[in-house]
Amino acid sequence: MTECLFCKLVDGSIPATKVYEDDKVLAFMDIMPLTKGHTLLIPKAHHASIQEMPPEEAAHLFSVAPKIARAIEDAFEPHGLNLLNNNGAPAGQSVFHFHLHFIPRYNEKDGLKVSWKTKEKEFSMDDFAEHAKEIQAKLS
Amino acid sequence: MTECLFCKLVDGSIPATKVYEDDKVLAFMDIMPLTKGHTLLIPKAHHASIQEMPPEEAAHLFSVAPKIARAIEDAFEPHGLNLLNNNGAPAGQSVFHFHLHFIPRYNEKDGLKVSWKTKEKEFSMDDFAEHAKEIQAKLS
Ligand SMILES: [Zn+2]
Ligand SMILES: [Zn+2]
Ligand SMILES: [Zn+2]
Ligand SMILES: [Zn+2]
Repeated sequence: MTECLFCKLVDGSIPATKVYEDDKVLAFMDIMPLTKGHTLLIPKAHHASIQEMPPEEAAHLFSVAPKIARAIEDAFEPHGLNLLNNNGAPAGQSVFHFHLHFIPRYNEKDGLKVSWKTKEKEFSMDDFAEHAKEIQAKLS
Repeated sequence: MTECLFCKLVDGSIPATKVYEDDKVLAFMDIMPLTKGHTLLIPKAHHASIQEMPPEEAAHLFSVAPKIARAIEDAFEPHGLNLLNNNGAPAGQSVFHFHLHFIPRYNEKDGLKVSWKTKEKEFSMDDFAEHAKEIQAKLS
């Protein structure tokens, strides 16, 4: 038996508050929400992270993201919307089955706060060129 | 002439430090990075937000996300990786051309900090069922 919480939502052994479902993906309300309307979108197949997602499953999953985003916007009229995907515990991942958070944003009381401190002074244009090369070298 | 910064990167009128390119998407180094290896992935066509992305373009864009994520991981060996997409100024969007951030995470000095305060005490299971219904009602 699977020990993965999200696989259990998919197989129905734990109930989910479903928003959208097709043969490959499931969207449901996050019951530990950061804001009203916080929704999760997952592949039905178990893949731990974005690194592990097969390209076709990633494609299908994101193809339904715009309509879910619009429906959340139409339903709750938030001031903004973040899509967030955490990979690895140091990035905030707690369930190790890929999931994309849809987090509508309202005001200063939101449970999500993103602190954004850009580090452009730590890097030169040559550094960026070097970083791009390092990534390209690893792209198969 | 376009006034959109990312459209200018696509048409070449402003240079980008490219990581990956095909006929529909472009990935390049964010020159205001939060961490080493911070990369952006954008559609070449101009769409302001996830809400505006045509499903086929969203699909293609996310189909390349796993290989870019793996290449960033292989190149820099971060401890985690966040994918983040901000829609609307209150959600942190500053360039109004859809973009997906790939933010490798290393340590406590990262330029990205995510404060995650769950609000499960503010909502009941009935609330979640009601929220799901409200979203479903808006799903076309
Ligand atoms: Zn699973
Ligand atoms: Zn897998
Ligand atoms: Zn643009
Ligand atoms: Zn558009």
